[in-house]
Amino acid sequence: MSQAEIGLIGLGTMGAALALNIAEKGFPIAVWNRTTEVTRRFHATAGDLADRVVPTETLEGLVKAIAKPRTIILMVPAGQAVDDQLDALTPYLDSDDLVIDAGNADFHDTNRRSAAGLPFRFLGMGVSGGEEGARHGPSIMAGGSADDWDRIGNVLTAISAKAEDGSPCAARMGDAGAGHFVKMVHNGIEYADMQMIAEVYGLMRDGMGKSAGDISTVFDSWNAGPLQSYLIEISAKVTAANDPHSDKPMVDMILDRAGQKGTGRWTAIEAQHLAAPIPVIEAAVMARNVSARLDERQAGQARFGASAQAIDLPAETLEQALIAGKILCYAQGFSMIDAAAKSFGWSLDLPGIARVWRAGCIIRSAMLNDMADALAEDPARNLVMAPYFADLIESALPALRQVVASAIAAGHPLPALASGLMWFDMMRTARGTANMIQAQRDFFGAHGFERLDGVDDKHGPWGASH
Amino acid sequence: MSQAEIGLIGLGTMGAALALNIAEKGFPIAVWNRTTEVTRRFHATAGDLADRVVPTETLEGLVKAIAKPRTIILMVPAGQAVDDQLDALTPYLDSDDLVIDAGNADFHDTNRRSAAGLPFRFLGMGVSGGEEGARHGPSIMAGGSADDWDRIGNVLTAISAKAEDGSPCAARMGDAGAGHFVKMVHNGIEYADMQMIAEVYGLMRDGMGKSAGDISTVFDSWNAGPLQSYLIEISAKVTAANDPHSDKPMVDMILDRAGQKGTGRWTAIEAQHLAAPIPVIEAAVMARNVSARLDERQAGQARFGASAQAIDLPAETLEQALIAGKILCYAQGFSMIDAAAKSFGWSLDLPGIARVWRAGCIIRSAMLNDMADALAEDPARNLVMAPYFADLIESALPALRQVVASAIAAGHPLPALASGLMWFDMMRTARGTANMIQAQRDFFGAHGFERLDGVDDKHGPWGASH
Repeated sequence: MSQAEIGLIGLGTMGAALALNIAEKGFPIAVWNRTTEVTRRFHATAGDLADRVVPTETLEGLVKAIAKPRTIILMVPAGQAVDDQLDALTPYLDSDDLVIDAGNADFHDTNRRSAAGLPFRFLGMGVSGGEEGARHGPSIMAGGSADDWDRIGNVLTAISAKAEDGSPCAARMGDAGAGHFVKMVHNGIEYADMQMIAEVYGLMRDGMGKSAGDISTVFDSWNAGPLQSYLIEISAKVTAANDPHSDKPMVDMILDRAGQKGTGRWTAIEAQHLAAPIPVIEAAVMARNVSARLDERQAGQARFGASAQAIDLPAETLEQALIAGKILCYAQGFSMIDAAAKSFGWSLDLPGIARVWRAGCIIRSAMLNDMADALAEDPARNLVMAPYFADLIESALPALRQVVASAIAAGHPLPALASGLMWFDMMRTARGTANMIQAQRDFFGAHGFERLDGVDDKHGPWGASH
Repeated sequence: MSQAEIGLIGLGTMGAALALNIAEKGFPIAVWNRTTEVTRRFHATAGDLADRVVPTETLEGLVKAIAKPRTIILMVPAGQAVDDQLDALTPYLDSDDLVIDAGNADFHDTNRRSAAGLPFRFLGMGVSGGEEGARHGPSIMAGGSADDWDRIGNVLTAISAKAEDGSPCAARMGDAGAGHFVKMVHNGIEYADMQMIAEVYGLMRDGMGKSAGDISTVFDSWNAGPLQSYLIEISAKVTAANDPHSDKPMVDMILDRAGQKGTGRWTAIEAQHLAAPIPVIEAAVMARNVSARLDERQAGQARFGASAQAIDLPAETLEQALIAGKILCYAQGFSMIDAAAKSFGWSLDLPGIARVWRAGCIIRSAMLNDMADALAEDPARNLVMAPYFADLIESALPALRQVVASAIAAGHPLPALASGLMWFDMMRTARGTANMIQAQRDFFGAHGFERLDGVDDKHGPWGASH
């Protein structure tokens, strides 16, 4: 058998799916897993694709099975396992071989590995879309040198999802950890999208007394409009599903305690380091953390009673509120990416990022087409200032304000939607209230302030009041 | 001259104030500064206290001037300067000498230094209260071994602020970085207190058209009630002050762009690591970050117009809202400290922390007495569940809800107050909306969920819908 074009290490769920995707697109692939039995089983069940798969039993065997200069994709657990695998590969690789970490790495680790002077070439690559995406077309966000991307870009674009216009959802984002960084922000936005959907779901369930089936119908109708997206589509599906055990709606049988794998939290932490305000994502992470404190919530309800009162809002108003909330959340996310580009010296292609998210990934949606266009006009401008989205916000904002104000009055918490609105109200206020904070800081700590009139006097006349 | 009881390195603003405080309380103190001229000037201007101050010109000279076993306070900039100073001291110190880092250290650094096997004893100590506090009585939060605290506790309690009941606001919080950790959360709460005050200030200024002087009167009246605190007191003072240059109210001349030294951000980051929800503090940090984006805010107002409309709310309603917001914020802060204790294996004395904050520090307030009592009853219980505060919340919450809902309707952003309310509404809801998020996560990523009825089936019947 001739040599494989590419190699892959790690045949777990994601690695196996990605390997089959690569083989299916016509690229002979050598695979290796720490447990040989896993490799054998993978090959044995690869069906028609088996003759494009080269199973190998040793790391050396894997490397030898790949044509030079070699490319090897790592799909092993993030963290130490990646460093161990890079070490293990070192004796077998030449300096122009290329290793791609396609796992869920912390971008700081990818930066570190890129800077560590590895004795071979290295790309960090975020892959979104879960098992199904990996098998049939993920969204791919790569970081590393343009040369390395050019060498393997044909394979990565071939296996990636395709947007409606046929263009591949795979691109080099920038140097080093840029790919994993963009993937992290994607996940933060995913948290926020899901939380905003859960908030309007809660209004319909607890405020308007709608059944899961009725709510499903609403989501379904929204999926035919501006909110068209994978997450709205599956929201309709999960609310439509019946639990086979109880024959009740499935969602009504699921405990309201949300887990997380930490990427939303990472996004919130990085935003703090960048001083980039992403309150919608922060609110979404916060809501998951609160959901986890079930015992405390039960004690709270026992003491105070639940807060939710009846409220009635037209479905169209909720839809408009969600449209506004979504735009505001994405504006924050892209602004954070812009801050990262400046901070890390990356030249990140904002419209390109919006394009890569159009298909394959969890946050794929119709609106990302328009976002890509708006960002292409002027990437330095906040998304809410792009004429298309400014108009959209202006028409949807009254609904968002009505929903947030009336829901809070009626005791329904919607931290993500509210955070978006308040961020926007602050971002349209040239004269805010931080002068009060600056006055306090100067009073107790002599921190100084700037003056509106430019007079050169950084301190207030507090002397006598101390 | 006989030997000094204690030494101090670093005669900047804070170090000089602390050294004078120590001398004033009767403890002979040896001092050293990298620049000898600074040491000389300090001694020359120490007035009556000069004969209790031993100026030294070398590090070795400093060490020799102190009675064994020695205690040396470091008051140098946080970070590398502390490590450098510890290294420089090493040749001169015995194993039972004690070094206290009284700077604004990141508690992770204090943990690291404590674990590094330094060849002498080590305490990390947070000091709050600015220059005036350091000079006349700061709040002191120490971390390290109980033995080391016992050795120097008499000096530290003597120089600390005293609560109304006369007890010193100085205590050992726990091991290693516990003191600097508690100081960090103090600063996070400080950000939140200041932001909530700025939010009601904004409502009075922009919604009700009140002058700074009128607002000062309101703050003054609040300072005679449950909100009595240093920050309300100085809010009254700064709004009363006139700018000598323009003869307008000082606050009206100050640019609304708030700075930060990072401790609020650190608090938000640590809360993420601990999965501890502190949305009021997060909102306060976010608001400062948004305030810094003045150009964007000006562009936003030019495009969308400012959002604030007239609104009229009785001062009593604002006061009640602020009372509720404050309790909710502190409940989150103490809950975060509790999470840290569990995570780091510290036995943190929550009521003791509230007591240490009663005087000397920026967030000192009358309410901390009641918080200390409530936490003493049951430190494991969330503060909002303590009978005293549960009753207070119950009576003040309608005002908070009215203020938040009507302010948002009128376009006034109050992210901190709103975040507190929404957190509380979530914490009193036994059945939240995270079931929707769990359903989505299981649909797209097979992440699994828990069921309300305990049936052993972690996945939904999505098969056909995929």
